[in-house]
Amino acid sequence: MKFVTAMIHKESFIGLVHGERIIDLAKAEKEIFELSSIPKSLYECIKLGDKFVQHVKQIVDKINEEGSEGFLYRIEDVTILPPIPRPTKNIFCVGKNYREHAIEMGSEEDIPKHVMLFSKAPTTVIGHEDEIDPHLHITNELDYEGELAIVIGQKGKQINEAEAMDYVFGYTIINDLTARNLQAQHKQFLLGKSLDTSCPMGPYLVHKSAVSNPYDLTLTTKINGEVRQNGNTKDMIFSIEHVISTISQGTTLEPGDIIATGTPAGVGKGFNPPRFLKPGDIVEVEIEGIGVLRNRVKE
Amino acid sequence: MKFVTAMIHKESFIGLVHGERIIDLAKAEKEIFELSSIPKSLYECIKLGDKFVQHVKQIVDKINEEGSEGFLYRIEDVTILPPIPRPTKNIFCVGKNYREHAIEMGSEEDIPKHVMLFSKAPTTVIGHEDEIDPHLHITNELDYEGELAIVIGQKGKQINEAEAMDYVFGYTIINDLTARNLQAQHKQFLLGKSLDTSCPMGPYLVHKSAVSNPYDLTLTTKINGEVRQNGNTKDMIFSIEHVISTISQGTTLEPGDIIATGTPAGVGKGFNPPRFLKPGDIVEVEIEGIGVLRNRVKE
Repeated sequence: MKFVTAMIHKESFIGLVHGERIIDLAKAEKEIFELSSIPKSLYECIKLGDKFVQHVKQIVDKINEEGSEGFLYRIEDVTILPPIPRPTKNIFCVGKNYREHAIEMGSEEDIPKHVMLFSKAPTTVIGHEDEIDPHLHITNELDYEGELAIVIGQKGKQINEAEAMDYVFGYTIINDLTARNLQAQHKQFLLGKSLDTSCPMGPYLVHKSAVSNPYDLTLTTKINGEVRQNGNTKDMIFSIEHVISTISQGTTLEPGDIIATGTPAGVGKGFNPPRFLKPGDIVEVEIEGIGVLRNRVKE
Repeated sequence: MKFVTAMIHKESFIGLVHGERIIDLAKAEKEIFELSSIPKSLYECIKLGDKFVQHVKQIVDKINEEGSEGFLYRIEDVTILPPIPRPTKNIFCVGKNYREHAIEMGSEEDIPKHVMLFSKAPTTVIGHEDEIDPHLHITNELDYEGELAIVIGQKGKQINEAEAMDYVFGYTIINDLTARNLQAQHKQFLLGKSLDTSCPMGPYLVHKSAVSNPYDLTLTTKINGEVRQNGNTKDMIFSIEHVISTISQGTTLEPGDIIATGTPAGVGKGFNPPRFLKPGDIVEVEIEGIGVLRNRVKE
């Protein structure tokens, strides 16, 4: 199940990817069940939990049986928005969660012994195919970081690692764009990570049931078609379960919370000389089974 | 003008401190002007900007003229909630913004050359007189940090220092409670600063018109009546204008955004041996003209 927040004819809707097409879930529900229970935002859907997922399954089963068409759009006819366009708090991000990336950012000394957590302001979020503002007046070191992100499905505190996956709704892709000069200058990462448009997210929110093993996903980032990052989620230092458990020991996690799990080696700063983003660049982050998130840096 | 979010008879309301009493603004407006325009949250009030402030002035003028009473409560009869109980993003916090505090946290080397910014999750916010959870299962180094916080009044990006004060709605007090062990262990500050209940806020949101000079306010923090922090906002390294301008160069600021401006010397970690908070401790942060924020650590 790949959910989208999308827009057609200037109205946004919650959709489900269905082959080459997208089901308008509210429209399908109305036509098939004469019901109007699908919320207007994925955030609200997530809060409904399994009930929502079960209901969507019923809708899809009926569509497969009956083959109705009135609520199906071609993907190219809709505008994909970020799955959660406006998170209700900053996005949690894990820093240096891949060994080779930690080393490329400094040295072996930089490999963290404990989860490193920082955040990105919700004003950073943009969708698939939205333009990235290069903010040339304050940085010429804008860098990409392709990351698997998890979306929390239910409220929890002091979550054990063994139960952590119960609290996950699904997965999406995040490009944790970073102004390296600001990240270094201001010591704490918040500012260098919070430029407007610095969190492309999506295109899909993939339900966890569709991801058999989140620790065996190839993650690549291409700049203008050239592969720069080529990693695999199996190389995460701290597992998703560990990150959820660590945060939630003192901090309540809530439905819709987003946790970006860190980026593998190959960021622009890791090259010698560094290869930062330039206006006109096309950045594509692809994660196996999750999707391709593509954005262009504004000229 | 000191605004409060408060509760009486299990209903919350927006109030204004009026001598020893609190005006229920919506009730007063209805009785005096037969109008119902006061929003239900201070966040919504702030978004109305000067129009809201002017309207409140009219209400107060009428009350002073006519001396009506039906919408006035005694402060001790209401429960004070945080002025903004659920911020729509993490709280921005300036680190090490007082020279002597930077030194007590390490050495002269720790005095920042650029604004250091981190954040606290919105789930940390509690009100005046609410209890602080000591989180003894994960920390025995819970520390206090009394701070002047500003609340943004209007949306802005690339704000010049000269215009920055136009974007401020007013001031409140924050106790930026910090688990020092987690702050150190996880390098980036987010986790050690984001324990539930670690952001007591209030009691008032003081409109900027009531603060003639934000750079001449005595700030004291007392633990069980003993003065630990005794600073003055004149000693900030980076001015409010500079902080607003710096953040907004790349990050859009929005109405209701909260920026804590840093803490002066005298935190528990600054003592030798350190003097961290214990269950039962009463923490009082007082800022001249802004109020006294008092919280007890739960036993």
